[in-house]
Formats: sequence, structure tokens, C-alpha cells
Amino acid sequence: MNRSDITDLIIEAKVTKGIRWSDVAEKVGKSKEWTTAACLGQMAFDAPGAQAIMEIFGLPPEAEPWLRTVPYKGSLPTPVPTDPLIYRFYELVSIYGTTFKALIHEEFGDGIMSAIDFRMDLRRDADPNGDRVKIEMSGKFLPYKTY
Amino acid sequence: MNRSDITDLIIEAKVTKGIRWSDVAEKVGKSKEWTTAACLGQMAFDAPGAQAIMEIFGLPPEAEPWLRTVPYKGSLPTPVPTDPLIYRFYELVSIYGTTFKALIHEEFGDGIMSAIDFRMDLRRDADPNGDRVKIEMSGKFLPYKTY
Amino acid sequence: MNRSDITDLIIEAKVTKGIRWSDVAEKVGKSKEWTTAACLGQMAFDAPGAQAIMEIFGLPPEAEPWLRTVPYKGSLPTPVPTDPLIYRFYELVSIYGTTFKALIHEEFGDGIMSAIDFRMDLRRDADPNGDRVKIEMSGKFLPYKTY
Amino acid sequence: MNRSDITDLIIEAKVTKGIRWSDVAEKVGKSKEWTTAACLGQMAFDAPGAQAIMEIFGLPPEAEPWLRTVPYKGSLPTPVPTDPLIYRFYELVSIYGTTFKALIHEEFGDGIMSAIDFRMDLRRDADPNGDRVKIEMSGKFLPYKTY
Amino acid sequence: MNRSDITDLIIEAKVTKGIRWSDVAEKVGKSKEWTTAACLGQMAFDAPGAQAIMEIFGLPPEAEPWLRTVPYKGSLPTPVPTDPLIYRFYELVSIYGTTFKALIHEEFGDGIMSAIDFRMDLRRDADPNGDRVKIEMSGKFLPYKTY
Amino acid sequence: MNRSDITDLIIEAKVTKGIRWSDVAEKVGKSKEWTTAACLGQMAFDAPGAQAIMEIFGLPPEAEPWLRTVPYKGSLPTPVPTDPLIYRFYELVSIYGTTFKALIHEEFGDGIMSAIDFRMDLRRDADPNGDRVKIEMSGKFLPYKTY
Amino acid sequence: MNRSDITDLIIEAKVTKGIRWSDVAEKVGKSKEWTTAACLGQMAFDAPGAQAIMEIFGLPPEAEPWLRTVPYKGSLPTPVPTDPLIYRFYELVSIYGTTFKALIHEEFGDGIMSAIDFRMDLRRDADPNGDRVKIEMSGKFLPYKTY
Amino acid sequence: MNRSDITDLIIEAKVTKGIRWSDVAEKVGKSKEWTTAACLGQMAFDAPGAQAIMEIFGLPPEAEPWLRTVPYKGSLPTPVPTDPLIYRFYELVSIYGTTFKALIHEEFGDGIMSAIDFRMDLRRDADPNGDRVKIEMSGKFLPYKTY
Amino acid sequence: MNRSDITDLIIEAKVTKGIRWSDVAEKVGKSKEWTTAACLGQMAFDAPGAQAIMEIFGLPPEAEPWLRTVPYKGSLPTPVPTDPLIYRFYELVSIYGTTFKALIHEEFGDGIMSAIDFRMDLRRDADPNGDRVKIEMSGKFLPYKTY
Amino acid sequence: MNRSDITDLIIEAKVTKGIRWSDVAEKVGKSKEWTTAACLGQMAFDAPGAQAIMEIFGLPPEAEPWLRTVPYKGSLPTPVPTDPLIYRFYELVSIYGTTFKALIHEEFGDGIMSAIDFRMDLRRDADPNGDRVKIEMSGKFLPYKTY
Repeated sequence: MNRSDITDLIIEAKVTKGIRWSDVAEKVGKSKEWTTAACLGQMAFDAPGAQAIMEIFGLPPEAEPWLRTVPYKGSLPTPVPTDPLIYRFYELVSIYGTTFKALIHEEFGDGIMSAIDFRMDLRRDADPNGDRVKIEMSGKFLPYKTY
Repeated sequence: MNRSDITDLIIEAKVTKGIRWSDVAEKVGKSKEWTTAACLGQMAFDAPGAQAIMEIFGLPPEAEPWLRTVPYKGSLPTPVPTDPLIYRFYELVSIYGTTFKALIHEEFGDGIMSAIDFRMDLRRDADPNGDRVKIEMSGKFLPYKTY
Repeated sequence: MNRSDITDLIIEAKVTKGIRWSDVAEKVGKSKEWTTAACLGQMAFDAPGAQAIMEIFGLPPEAEPWLRTVPYKGSLPTPVPTDPLIYRFYELVSIYGTTFKALIHEEFGDGIMSAIDFRMDLRRDADPNGDRVKIEMSGKFLPYKTY
Repeated sequence: MNRSDITDLIIEAKVTKGIRWSDVAEKVGKSKEWTTAACLGQMAFDAPGAQAIMEIFGLPPEAEPWLRTVPYKGSLPTPVPTDPLIYRFYELVSIYGTTFKALIHEEFGDGIMSAIDFRMDLRRDADPNGDRVKIEMSGKFLPYKTY
Repeated sequence: MNRSDITDLIIEAKVTKGIRWSDVAEKVGKSKEWTTAACLGQMAFDAPGAQAIMEIFGLPPEAEPWLRTVPYKGSLPTPVPTDPLIYRFYELVSIYGTTFKALIHEEFGDGIMSAIDFRMDLRRDADPNGDRVKIEMSGKFLPYKTY
Repeated sequence: MNRSDITDLIIEAKVTKGIRWSDVAEKVGKSKEWTTAACLGQMAFDAPGAQAIMEIFGLPPEAEPWLRTVPYKGSLPTPVPTDPLIYRFYELVSIYGTTFKALIHEEFGDGIMSAIDFRMDLRRDADPNGDRVKIEMSGKFLPYKTY
Repeated sequence: MNRSDITDLIIEAKVTKGIRWSDVAEKVGKSKEWTTAACLGQMAFDAPGAQAIMEIFGLPPEAEPWLRTVPYKGSLPTPVPTDPLIYRFYELVSIYGTTFKALIHEEFGDGIMSAIDFRMDLRRDADPNGDRVKIEMSGKFLPYKTY
Repeated sequence: MNRSDITDLIIEAKVTKGIRWSDVAEKVGKSKEWTTAACLGQMAFDAPGAQAIMEIFGLPPEAEPWLRTVPYKGSLPTPVPTDPLIYRFYELVSIYGTTFKALIHEEFGDGIMSAIDFRMDLRRDADPNGDRVKIEMSGKFLPYKTY
Repeated sequence: MNRSDITDLIIEAKVTKGIRWSDVAEKVGKSKEWTTAACLGQMAFDAPGAQAIMEIFGLPPEAEPWLRTVPYKGSLPTPVPTDPLIYRFYELVSIYGTTFKALIHEEFGDGIMSAIDFRMDLRRDADPNGDRVKIEMSGKFLPYKTY
Repeated sequence: MNRSDITDLIIEAKVTKGIRWSDVAEKVGKSKEWTTAACLGQMAFDAPGAQAIMEIFGLPPEAEPWLRTVPYKGSLPTPVPTDPLIYRFYELVSIYGTTFKALIHEEFGDGIMSAIDFRMDLRRDADPNGDRVKIEMSGKFLPYKTY
């Protein structure tokens, strides 16, 4: 058994039991964004979080320490994602990548937006022309330092 | 001459004259996000926009129709970007890709967030622990339809 | 069990029982194009559709919720397809890709043809010089908007 | 000078003179789909066609024999296209590739749809919910033969 | 069970029973080239052919409909083959590819040699300096047509 | 100047002067297959051959020693060729690669068909159902030897 | 002119004038590691630094603003480096990558070593069995935070 | 059973029993860096080391000779690592690769830093602005020799 | 069962029983280089060789015909090998590839060194500065012939 | 001007003046293997060697310091070489790579054959069945050390 097997068990339980990510998040006491990423094998739970996941998804006992172990990260099977929903995010990086770079450097100087000290919030925005997906990302600016 | 040559001229003028993207945007009358992407060869300007760009960057006359022509899009030289700032966005897609998918499907059903009917806003968020980059993305949800 | 296992079961049942996609489509009440794509793991069924599929292919009970779950899409094992029939479509994109782009932009301006709000119809066209495959594709034009 | 240089000259003339592909096609006396592909370096013109292109785009004399020479085909710089409009067609192959295969084999048996004895028609379909791109493809079915 | 499993069974039976491809071909009543390709999972058998294969290789009953089903084609695990015998053919395409193109276009005009309406014959040519492999390929010329 | 520049000059002269490969071959005194490959930068000419090429294509004096120098071989810009005519040959390797291997090993034992001690002949085969491209390849069998 | 041209000018001046990186660093007032990376196009200089570089390497005036502009980073022409010296570092990542991960997580928990808030020192370590390259790297630990 | 299976068993035992790499190293009597790499399948143990590992992780008897066998090395599933912690090291090679090369050649002349006669030490450096990961690498310089 | 399974069995037996390749070679009556390559799945044994291998490694009866069957060759899991020992040979090809080419053409004219009619010998060369690996390769020169 | 330009000049001079690598080596006073690799841009010359090269190939004065500078190594344009002569060496690594590894580990234990402390000798071996290319490689064995 490894973390990837546990992710499969979680997804299988979710599908067959009709569990919702937002309900899982509420029980775990974290945002739905972080919780879903963790359930999908990208983050490590703390002990109470792991306990909650064990119960919600009915996992076998040996799953518990794996949930608390830092996983090998990366959730996609190919460098360029084939799934259309995920590809659109890749496309944003391809089209707007140099724009992100230009505007962050203009505002902050040389450095990056952290993908580690990072949080995000994804929600529905009602719109008469068709509801919209709204995503707010917030990452700490980390400056390159000379030495 | 092609659009890529013009992007080079724009960048060269920006660097040597110290032009700011936000000032360009103001003169063009669009957001700094859209305007920067357009200057970097990813969007087509309308006639007044192209005129403004011609003046700001001192471009040669033959550049004008190119600015109004839809470009071949994609701003990055490699499928996995090497620049650390841009890579962090790729990493977000890699780590959170399946989470984006899971949460959008949970909220909206099958479909995607449009990368075309899309807008974004990037700004500095003051924070005592270090200022943060804040990005708001808004894309129309497009449902898969059965037929 | 995951969606990919179910697609294998569907294909195996189709081959061994000699089921026809067009018959499946009729029972599901959708076009043969959408239904086949859904059976091959690219679309999510609604409840009655899933029920019909369960019966036609004799699937085990745990397959039902998977059929209603949005799958990770992408039906090909390699970025450039090796199967000659599928490769010809890839070749059309390679040869006519810039033509699609040129003509759509000429007619509609900047934007794309949606692959989501999309439908198609594939049929035989009798022809004395050899029958032809006729494919009609219809995708909503989505304009890039400035902001 | 090679065919690729001539394609660049054609595109440059088109952009700077505001020539429309459909007008070119009319003068050449072929469909706009074939004519555009030929102008973009994917097809060989016959002598009158080449003559028409020479005049429309004001090409230098040495361009004429190149226009009548069969080019090395393939219009895209990368195996997976980065341009969003063209990518949507690649996505259709990725999502519907196995469906094309299943339905053509069901209707015709083993073989392929020719990408050589092929024609297509691309037009605007007015639609109250947003106009649509309509593409009709017609390719001869070529059966695999045993021997 | 899928077609790939059946190809494995065929190869295993061939190796352990010492069956020769040419004998198989004779019983199937087709050329050894077509028959071998079909046994290796690249072609679909008709009913009598499938029956013959079932008997020769002692396949289980569920294999029969698979043998009559059009397979997903492509027999090599990597885009550039590692096996030296097969690589030499890839090398011929690499070295002579542009020569094939030049000579076929000179003789026939724009078009291709079909890989579908195609047959070949492979045999030993006695030669005092070492016997030679002789391969005759015959593919229908398919002209590009203007439209 | 390098060999690749000379290949460009040869192609340019061929296109603009309407030279035929078969005429070049006759003057060089070799087959059209070998001569074309050599003109396209894949083989080295002997002194009289180089002289003939110099005259036919009107090359500058510094080209002569390059024509007699063994080139870095490989005539295609991508590992998987995009040109449809050349791709069909790649497809033959993909579909029939394991068949070539199976039949050559059955006839000759372990070894390969040489791509060096190799010759080929490409010609038109008249056929009432459409003329065919006929290619005869002959390569020496080279056995693996134990030691 | 772009940053890459300037890097070429710097390297050319270094080679032809025999300038040493450590001397450059001393004049710039930074470490030799940071200064070399900056000269090789990976970091942005401040105004006095750029001025020093202009003088040391005799750069043309238009180079100055480029030196102060954040470059598109990534110094290698291929994803897997071909140069043996640089490959050895890639090999360390390949062999010890999972070890870095295991030990950092054991000591610090989930997070990364920053490649931005990072400094390093490279020096010669005398050793009777052959002098050694000693590299000290120091990167801030950045913890993943739950939210 | 192969070495990769044993690595899986070691990782599973570590996770479920909460074993620490530094404790393992102490019992094996080697550094934690070397020991962890060896446990993760990158180095061969000597007999006492293998014995210690067998006991610590409770491995089955057939694992012992595998632990003493030199493994096929390389610990990462993709050429460009997806895990953020490991990617940062790849990024250092990408950004600083040419700097490593420049400084080592300046100090030592042509040659490389050995990745074989190599050792390293990884530890926590307390820092009021956030603790740091400190890595010391020491590799023998190996000069290219003329001959 | 296939040849790859048998290679796994051979390696497992070698590791657990401590068999040496040179002893295997002696029993097989061939060189250790050829014998090892054959055991690792790259060559076909004759009947007595296969019999010897069956006994030495205690293989199951169905392995015997597989050992005598020509395998699909290629022993490495990735195009650029990750194992440091094997990578050094790849590096030699990368660094010295054009040198091999230049010197062989200078000595022999156009052609190649056969990798089929090839043998090699690998041994230890005692050296006071550290023992050396000595490899002698001998491959028949195969000239390109004109035709 | 950079090292790659100088390599081009050397090759051009060699071709047009008919210079032989073995004569160059004699004048430089090194082996023909090392000298050729250095001329092809893979090694750095010392001062007298650079002087000799300047004269032999008639290089411009600014070439001299480049010849003494350590180059960015790697002589091939693609990871898998297309040139048949060079590919055969790649094939040897692919077929015999695991054999090299097995035999070197059996004889020496864990470690590698150095590609840095390395020399080789390539010569013609007369043989009544066709002359052979003989290559002797000698590389220092470098053991992995525990620490």
C-alpha cells in the first residue's frame, strides 16, 4: 500500500457514497481547496485531519500513517494535461505566463509568487450571462536577494 | 516583419525607455493584465489601441496592421517553463489541477472554466509577514451539453 | 474499480456480445457520437443514461456511480496517435490548423470554436467513386473579450 | 528563398494590405479552405493559380515556381499546438479520437477516412445563443484490404 | 481480456509450439505478411480466418470476437524503435524520407503512397556475397485534389 | 557554407530551373534513388559525380569539396515526420515493424536487414484502379554472431 | 538587442580579454556566485552593479537598462544538460532527489528549500588525494501551510 | 522480487512504524545522507549494513542479497521532477548550471566535480528570519587529460 | 510468460544464488560479454546454450523456447539512461560521436562500424593510479555503396 | 564569435583544403582522437596547441582565446542521433548498456568507468572478411564510497 493506493480508495469511496468535497472540508476544519488537494494526494494531514479522513471514507487502518506522510507531489499523468478543464489552466500559463512575469516584476522587482506560502479560494459567481468560476490566489512575494 | 518582431521592438523600447505596463494600460484604456498580454503578442488590439501602442513605443508604420491582427498565441519557449516565476504557475496546475477539476465539477457539473471569456486582476496585497501577490481570475463556466 | 476499468468492461461486452454503438445510442436517447464518447470514458451520463448502459452492457452494480461521475478526459495513449484512422484526424489539424485559424478569425474576429459547446454528426455519404465519411462539426464561437 | 519565405511574404502582404482569404479564393477559383491552406504553404498551385497569387500578393518573380512545387507539409511549430483556437481541434482528436474510430469502423469496417481525398467547408451558422462555427468534412473511406 | 492479451497468447503459443508464420498464413489463405501483421494485433480477421487462428494457436473461446474486431493499431512501444532490426527501417525513413517524397512527386504530382491500399512481399534473395532481404511494397497513389 | 546550404542551393536551382531528378541521375550515372538522396544531403559524391552536380545546378566553386564530403545524415526535421507522404512510411514501420522483425527472423535467424548495403528502386505501376507506387528494397542480411 | 545578446557580449569580452569572474565579483561588490549568474543572464543588477559591468566588459550604452531588467531565466539549452560538468549536478538531483526530500521532510516537515531566498558558496578544498570542489548551499525552509 | 519492491517495503515499514532516517543511519554506522539514498534504492549495502536494514525494517529473507547488489540508479519518475521540493534542486541546476561550470573551470581548469567520489551533509541552520536548509557538497575535481 | 519475465527470473536467481556472469559464460562456452547480453534479454541462445542457462538459473521448462527466440532488443528504460555507469557511455557518444564519425570516414570513407558484426572484450587494467576499465570493440566496416 | 563559429570555420577549412585529422594531430602532438574532439569543439587546447590550430586552419586572430576556453560540451543536435554511423554507437549503449553495468560491477564493485579520465584509440584492423574498426577505450574505475 502506498499513498497513491489511498487516493484511489478515497476517490472510489467518494464516487460510490456520493460524498462532497465541501462536506469533507467542513469536517476536517480546513478550506475545501486545501482539503481536496490533500485528499487527492498532494498534501499531508495532521493527526486529527487524518482521523477525520479515515472515518469519512472508511479507510483501512494502515492508511492512517500514510495520510500524515508528505507525498511525492504532482497530480497529473502528462506534462501537458489532456483533460479539457485542467488544460484551460495550462493554457492560461502559456498565454499569460509572460504577463504574470511582467506585472509581478513591475510591481515587486525580481522574485516570484510563492506556490508554497500560497492559498486560494474557488467559488461560483452568479452572472446573468452565465455563472462564472472565480478563483482568488494569494501567494507571498519572495524576492531574489543578492549576496 | 511579423508579430514576434514587433513584440521584440515593444520590449526593447520598454526596457530602454523605462516605460511601465500600468501606464501603457491607462493610455490604451484597458486593464494592465489585458494590455500587457496584448503587448507581449497574445491579443489583438483594436484601431485606437494599436494607435496608442504605436505612439507609446515609437513603432515603425508597418507595425500597425500587425497589432490589429490576431497572433499565433503561446508565450513560452518550452512546454514546461524554465523561468522560476512562471514555473510556479505551472506547478500550481500540476499540484492543484485535479483539485480545480474536482471542485468545479462539484459546484457546476461537467464542463470547464473558459480561458477565453476570462479576465483577471493581479495586485499587491500588503501583509505584515511579507506582501503578497493576489490574483483574481474569473472565467465563464461552459457546460458540456449532451446531444 | 475506476472509470477506466468500466470502459474496458464496456468494450469487452461490446466485442463479445456484438453490440452496436448506434443501438446503444438509441436506447440512451442521445446521438451516437455523444453516446459512444461517453461509453469510451469521455463524458458523464445522467441517471437514466447510466441505468441504460448498466443493462445493455451487463455491468456490475458498483459501475453505476462511476458512469455518472465526470471522468479525467483524453482517450489516446500518446500525444501523436499511432492508430492510422485517428492519425488522419491529427494530420488534418497539422495541415489545416493554420487554415482553421485564418478562416475563423476572418469570419468572426479573435476567439475560438468551442470544443465544449460542441456537437457533431458522422455519417456515410454514398459516392460512385467510393463512399465517403462525412462529419459535420458545430461549435459555438467564443470571442476573446478585452477588459 | 524557399516556400516558407514565400508563406511569410504572403502573410505579410495580407496583413499590411488587408487582403481577405475569401477574395483570394474567388480569384483563384477554388474554395476558400483549399486556397488558404495553399497560401499557408500546405498545397501546390497549378500555373494559373500561382499566377493569381503572384499578382494578389505582389510576390517577386522567383516565387512563382515555388508556388507550383509540392511543399514539405505540416503547418504547426509544435506537436501539441499552443494556439488556443488550434488546440481546440487537437482536443477534439484527443477526446473524440476513439469515437471517430469506433463509429467509422462500425459503419464501414476496417479502414480510414482519407485526409488526402478530402475536402471541407467552414462557415458561420447564425444562432440566437451565439453564432456557431460549422465545419463539414468529407473524406473518402479507404478500406484495408487483405492480400 | 483485450486484443493485446490475445497477441501475447499467440506469441506465447508460437514460441512454445514452434509454429511458423508462413504455415499460419497458408492455413489462413492469405500472404504471410498480412497474416503475421494480423496475428501481431494490427489487422482484423474475417470469420474463417479467426477460426483458423483459434485452432492453430489453441486460443480460449472469448478470443474469437476480438480477432474479428478492428484493433487500435501501432506495434511499437516507443516513437523511435530500439530494436536494431526495426530501427533500420526507421533509419531508411530518416535518410530516404525526402527522397521518397521527391521522386513520388516527380512521377505522380502532389499526393501520397497509400499505407492502407497497400501490400508487400518479403523474401530471401540468394546472393553469393551474402543473401539479401528483398521487400516489394506496392501502395496506391492517392492524389491531393483541389476543391 | 556547409552541406546544408548546398542542399538548399540545389533545391532552389531545381525548383527555379525545373530540373528533374531522373535527368540528374542519368548525367551522374547512378540510379535516381541514390542520386536524389545524395543531392538532398544524405550521400557523398565521387569526383565526377560532384563535377556533374556542380554543372547541372550551377553551384559556386566552394561547393565542390562539400559534395565529396560525407554529410551528417538524417533528412527530417522531427522524429515523427509531419509531411503526409513521409508519414505514411513512418506508419508502415509502426504497423509492420514487428512483422518485418518476425518474418526476417523466421527466414534468416537473428540479425538485421542492412540499411547500408542497401539499394532500392521506386517506380510507377500502371493499374486500372489507380496507378500504384512500387518500391523494391534490397538489403543484405547481417547475422548477429556469437563470440 | 536583448539580454541574451548582452550575455554573448559579456562572454566574448571575458574570453578575449581574459577577465576572471572573481575579479568581476570584487568590483561589483557581491559574491562570485551571484555575480557570475547575473553576468550569465540569470539575475538583474542594480544601477551601480550595471555600471561596473558596463565598464569591465566594455558594453555598448544600450546594454545598461537590460542589465537592470529581470531576465527570462534558465541557462541551459536542453532539459537534460549535455555538458558533463553540468550533467553531474543533474545526476545528483536524479540520484539524491528522493533523499533530499526524505531528509528535509524528516527535519522540517512538509515544505521546500527555497531556490529564491538562497545563496551558495563554491570553493576549492585542498586534499592530498586530489583537490575537491566544495559547495555550500543555504536556502530558507518554506513550510506548506494549511488554510 | 527486485530492488524496487524492497524499496517499497522499506518505505512502507518506515511510514507505518514511524522509523526515522537518522536513527537508521546511526545503526548502519554511516551518514544519514548515504544511508537514506541506499534505503531509497540508490546505493549497495555491505553485509553488516544489509543485516541492519533487514532487522530495522523487518524485511523478508530474500531481500538481503538484493540490498548488497548494485541497483539500477535514478530515483525520479520523470526527467523534470514534478515534486516541488525536488524541482527546486532541478531549478538550481537550470539557473546556476552555467555558473557552476564557469566558476569550477576558472578555479580548476577543464574537468568536472565527481558525482561518484562525492559526499554531502544536509542540516538545519537556525536563523531568526526562518530556519534554513544547509547543504554541503564535496566532490573530487577530475581533470580532463589530453592524450 | 515472455522473455522479459525470464530476464527477471535470471537476475533474481543470480542475485539470490550469487552466480557470476563469467562462470555462466564459461559453462555456455561463449565470451562473458555476449553471454551477459544474452542473459539480459538481448541475444538468442542456441539449444545447448539455452539448456545450460536453464540449469544454471533453475528456470521453469517453458522458459527454454523463449531463450532460443530472438528478443525485442533494447535494454534501457529511457532514451537518455539515468544510471550513472550507463550514462557515462551515453556521454561518450555525445562528446565523441562526431569524432568517431570524422575518424572512421577519414580512414574508411563513407560507411559505418557494424553494431551487428561486432564483438567486444571488457577487462580490468591494473594501474598504480587506480585500476582502469579497458574495453576493446571490434566492428566490421560496412561501406555505403552507390547504385 | 563563439566556439561554435570556430568549429564551423575549422570544418569548412578542413573540407575545402582537404586537411586530414591525423596530420593535425601530429602537428598538435596529441592523439588523433583527442585532437579531433578538440577541433570539433569538445576540448580546450593549451597555448601551443591553439597556436598550431590557428595556423593549420588559417583562423582569424580572435579565435585563439576561444580555442583555449573550456567549451559547453555535447556534439550532437538530438538526444537520439540520426546519423547512422553515430547511431550505431548509441545502439551499442542501448543493447549492451546493462551488460557494461553487470560486468563492471562484477569485476570492480559499485562505481563507474570515468568518461573524464579516459582515453581511446581507434584504428583499422585488416580482416580478410572485410576490414574492421577497432576501438580501445580505457577509463579509470571510480568507486562509489560510503560516508
